Amino acid sequence: MEFRTVFNAMQKSNESCEDDDGSCLNKYLEEKLLVDCKDEKSSVQVVPDFSTLFSSDLLPTRNGEKPTEHFLLEVFEILFNYIKKNYSGKCKVLDFHHPHQILEGLEGFNLELSDQPEPLEQILVDCRDTLKYGIKTAHPCFFNQLSCGLDIIGLAGEWLTATANTNMFTYEISPVFIIMEEIVLKKMFEIIGWKENEGDGIFSPGGTISNLYSILVARYKYFPIVKTKGMAALPQIVVFTSEHSHYSFQKASAALGLGTENVIAVKCNARGKMIPSDLEAQILKAKEEGHVPFYVSATAGTTVLGAFDPLMDIADICEKYSLWMHVDAAWGGGLLLSKKHCFKLNGIKRANSVTWNPHKLMGVPLQCSAVLIREKGILQACNQMSATYLFQRDKPYNIAYDTGDKTIQCGRHIDVFKLWLMWKAKGTSGFECQINGCLDLAMHIYKTLKTKDDFQLVFPEEVAPKIKAHMMEEGTVMVGYQPLDDKPNFFRLVFSNPASTKSDADFLLEEIVRLGKDL
Amino acid sequence: MEFRTVFNAMQKSNESCEDDDGSCLNKYLEEKLLVDCKDEKSSVQVVPDFSTLFSSDLLPTRNGEKPTEHFLLEVFEILFNYIKKNYSGKCKVLDFHHPHQILEGLEGFNLELSDQPEPLEQILVDCRDTLKYGIKTAHPCFFNQLSCGLDIIGLAGEWLTATANTNMFTYEISPVFIIMEEIVLKKMFEIIGWKENEGDGIFSPGGTISNLYSILVARYKYFPIVKTKGMAALPQIVVFTSEHSHYSFQKASAALGLGTENVIAVKCNARGKMIPSDLEAQILKAKEEGHVPFYVSATAGTTVLGAFDPLMDIADICEKYSLWMHVDAAWGGGLLLSKKHCFKLNGIKRANSVTWNPHKLMGVPLQCSAVLIREKGILQACNQMSATYLFQRDKPYNIAYDTGDKTIQCGRHIDVFKLWLMWKAKGTSGFECQINGCLDLAMHIYKTLKTKDDFQLVFPEEVAPKIKAHMMEEGTVMVGYQPLDDKPNFFRLVFSNPASTKSDADFLLEEIVRLGKDL
Repeated sequence: MEFRTVFNAMQKSNESCEDDDGSCLNKYLEEKLLVDCKDEKSSVQVVPDFSTLFSSDLLPTRNGEKPTEHFLLEVFEILFNYIKKNYSGKCKVLDFHHPHQILEGLEGFNLELSDQPEPLEQILVDCRDTLKYGIKTAHPCFFNQLSCGLDIIGLAGEWLTATANTNMFTYEISPVFIIMEEIVLKKMFEIIGWKENEGDGIFSPGGTISNLYSILVARYKYFPIVKTKGMAALPQIVVFTSEHSHYSFQKASAALGLGTENVIAVKCNARGKMIPSDLEAQILKAKEEGHVPFYVSATAGTTVLGAFDPLMDIADICEKYSLWMHVDAAWGGGLLLSKKHCFKLNGIKRANSVTWNPHKLMGVPLQCSAVLIREKGILQACNQMSATYLFQRDKPYNIAYDTGDKTIQCGRHIDVFKLWLMWKAKGTSGFECQINGCLDLAMHIYKTLKTKDDFQLVFPEEVAPKIKAHMMEEGTVMVGYQPLDDKPNFFRLVFSNPASTKSDADFLLEEIVRLGKDL
Repeated sequence: MEFRTVFNAMQKSNESCEDDDGSCLNKYLEEKLLVDCKDEKSSVQVVPDFSTLFSSDLLPTRNGEKPTEHFLLEVFEILFNYIKKNYSGKCKVLDFHHPHQILEGLEGFNLELSDQPEPLEQILVDCRDTLKYGIKTAHPCFFNQLSCGLDIIGLAGEWLTATANTNMFTYEISPVFIIMEEIVLKKMFEIIGWKENEGDGIFSPGGTISNLYSILVARYKYFPIVKTKGMAALPQIVVFTSEHSHYSFQKASAALGLGTENVIAVKCNARGKMIPSDLEAQILKAKEEGHVPFYVSATAGTTVLGAFDPLMDIADICEKYSLWMHVDAAWGGGLLLSKKHCFKLNGIKRANSVTWNPHKLMGVPLQCSAVLIREKGILQACNQMSATYLFQRDKPYNIAYDTGDKTIQCGRHIDVFKLWLMWKAKGTSGFECQINGCLDLAMHIYKTLKTKDDFQLVFPEEVAPKIKAHMMEEGTVMVGYQPLDDKPNFFRLVFSNPASTKSDADFLLEEIVRLGKDL
C-alpha cells in the first residue's frame, strides 16, 4: 500500500474533480477545520494513493482500517458535493443521454464488468459519473412523479440502515428496528383513528405490493380455504375500484389469480372522484351475473388528478353489502398529518385496510410504504408458514415480535428507520408544516395559471410530449405528462419536493412556455 | 443558529461519545489531516451547536449547507466508528434486551414519537443508540442466517443509492441504473450459460418474491388466460419442489391462488438432495388424480443442509413432461463464480428461470435478489399493464428501457448499483476468491469437528435452544439452529461473512462447548 503526501493527493484530486464549484478535497478539508494547511511542514503523509489500492485492501483486511476510512470519506465528499449542487439548483435536473450512448460509454464512463478488479480510484470516478449522468430528484425543479426531494435526516437514516445491514424477519436479528416498526405503525393507526385494540401492519417494498396485501388479506378473511386449496375452491370473486385508481389493482389481481377482468371499474365524476351510486350499481350487477363481490378500494389521492374518493359514502356501501373496504392512500395519506387538509380523508377510520406511502408526500427516501390492516392477527394468519429454521417456538424471548411471518417475503429490508428518525427530528408538527407547504405551492401555481393567457386547459395532443422531449434535452426542469379519458396529453405538476419554492414553480411555467414556443 | 468554537465543540463531542476507543470528533479531525490543531489562534468558529439546531435548519433551508455538512459528517463518524468496532471483533455480537425492555427505554433511549421536533443532538444520540442495541451482522463471530458481513464497496454503493433517491420504474428517472441492471443481468445470464438471445430478468425485493415471480411467469406461459380471467379459467394446477426447499414456495402458492396443498413435496435423500425418481413418481401420481403439473423448482443450496439438487436429472424429467424448470439458487448461486465449486450447479443452464441472491453468498448488502427468466419477453407480457401516466408510448427515447412494467411493483428500489460497484471493484475473480474462502472455512470447521469428542452429530433435543439463549445473553457469537425431519434442534453454521477467520470459527466451537457446560 502506497501513501503520498496529502498535498500531492489534493492536487490529484483537484485535477480529476468534475465539480465546477471548486469544492474539492483540499478546500473541503481546509474548510472543515478552517485551519491553515498550507504550511508544508505541518503536513504528513496521510491520504492513500487510490490508484494502487483495491477493495481487497479495505476492511476486513488486516490494516484495512485507515484505507477504509479514507475511501469512505472520499465517497462522503462525492455525495455531499452532489447534495449541495442539487439543492443549489445551479446544475441541470438531468444531463440526458440515450440508452445506446450510455451503453457505448460516455467520456470514459464504462459500465461493462470485468474479471479483474479495478483500483479504488476508478471506483470513485465511477461513483461521480453515476451521479453525473443520473436524474437529480432533489433539484428544486424536479416536479416529476412522485417520490422526490432528499430529506437530510431520511438520508442519514438510510445510510445508517445500510451500515447496520440486517434483516426484518425476526426480533433476534433486528431487535431495535422491529420495535421501531411497532411504534411507527401504532402512531399511524392512531392518526387514522383506529381504536386501541385495532391495527396491524407491515412495511412493504412499495405501494403496489401494499395494495396487493390488502386484496390478499381480504380474500383470506372471506375465504380462508384459499390458503390451502387455492382459487379453485372459490366462487368467481370480484373487486371494485374507480376508473382513476392506480394500476396496481390490475397488477395484483393478475398475480393473485383473480384476473384483471374481475377488477370492476367504478365511474368517476369530472374531478376524478368515485361515484358512490355507480359503485352500488356495479355491485348489484356483479351479483346478478353470479359473481361474488368482496372488496372495494377507494383512493385517497388519485395518481393523475389527485382526487379523493368520498370515503364515508363508500364505507356505507361496504357495510351494507359486507365488503372489505380498502383505502389506497399511498399518495394522499400524508394529508392525515395536516389539520388543515385531513378532512379530505374523512371516513378513513372505517376502512379495513389502508396503504400509506411515507416515501411520497412525507418525503421519506424510497422505499417506505406501509400496509395497515384494522383487524389484528389476520395478516399473520393469512401469510404464516412457520418455517422451523427461522420462527422457532423455543426462543428465549416473546416470539410475537418475530413479525416476519406476517409478510409474503422472507428477508425484508429495513424501511422503518429513516421514517422513525425523520419523525423524531421533525415531530408530527414538522411533517404537517412540510405538507402544508406543498399544498400552498400547488395553490400558488393554480392561481398563477389562471392569470396566464399562454396556458390552456387542453393542449393539442402532441404538444406535451414534444415539450417534455425538449425539457429532457435541456435538463432545466422535469415534470410528468399523460392523457386521461377524453383529455389529450397534459402536464401533471407534482408538489412533494420540500426543496421547491414559488419561484421554482413559476420557472417551470416559464420553461414550458419557452420550450413550447420552439415547436 | 449558534456556533461555538471548534474546540468547545470537540470537548463536548468527547463527553457525549460512547465509544471507548477514544476516536471522537477531535481525534478524528486531527488524524484526518494530521495537522496540529492545538494552536488556538488558528482555530475558528466552525462546528455548530447541535443542541440548538433542528432538521428545519438543514438543506433545503437557506444557509442550510454548512449545518448539513457538519451533521452528515457527525453521522459519518458514528457509522465509521461502528464499522471499525464491529470488524475489530472487540465488541459483543449483540447486547441482548427483551422487547419490553426496549419499549420501556434503555438508558434514555426513548423510541416514542412526539408532536414536537427534537434537536439534532438528540437525533445523533438516537443513531448511536440504534446501532448500540442492534445486532452486529458484520462481526466476525456472526454465523447466523444468511445475509451478513458488511462489504465496504457495497456499503458505499448503498450510500450513493440513498443519496440518488430515485426509482427503477422508467429510464426517464433512472437512466444509469437501468443500463447497469441490463449489464449485470447479462453477466449473470452468461455465467449461467444461457445463449446470446436468451435471458430476461429483474431485481426484486428478495428471494421469496423472486421465487414467486418464477411461478407467476410459468403459470402465464402455460395458461396465458390466467392474466385476464384468473385461476377460475384453469384446471387444478400443481407445482413440485423438494421437502427441503425454502418455504417461499408455500408462501407464493398461497398468494398466487394455487393453494399450499398444490405444492407437492418431493422426497430427498439423507443429504437433502431431491430424489429424481420420486419427482417422476409424484408427477405421474398428480396426473392420475386429474391435476395438471406445470412447474418444478429445484434447489441449489437448500436452506438448512446447503444441499444441491441433481439439476441434470431434474431437467431431463422436466423436458420429458414439458414442465417449467426453476432453480432456486438464492443461496447457492454465488458458487457459479467459483471454478472450483460451480460443478454443483451443473445443468442450471437448462432451467427456464433462476433465483439468485447476491445479498447472500456474494456478500452484497441487503436487499439484492435477481429473478432470471430464460425466455425473453415473457416477464413483460405476464406483468405489463401499460399505465399511461408512466409508460407513455411517445417518449423521446427507446422505451424498451422502461423496464418497470416487467415487475409486479410500480416504484422499485435501486438494488443493482451496489452489486455493480462491487463487481467493478472485485472483478469476477474477486468474488471467486471471497466465495472460495467461505467454503474453505466450512471445510476447516468440518475437519475440526471430526477431531472433537465434545460434539456429536445429534444432540439431546433441548440443548441447542438453551445454548443459543445463553449465547444471546452473552453476545459473544451468533449462530442459528433448527430441527429437521427426525433430527432434533441442531446448530447450522453459515459461512458467508468475509470478516470471519479460522480462529473465529474455532472460537464458535469453544463457545458452544463453554455455554453447553453451564447447562
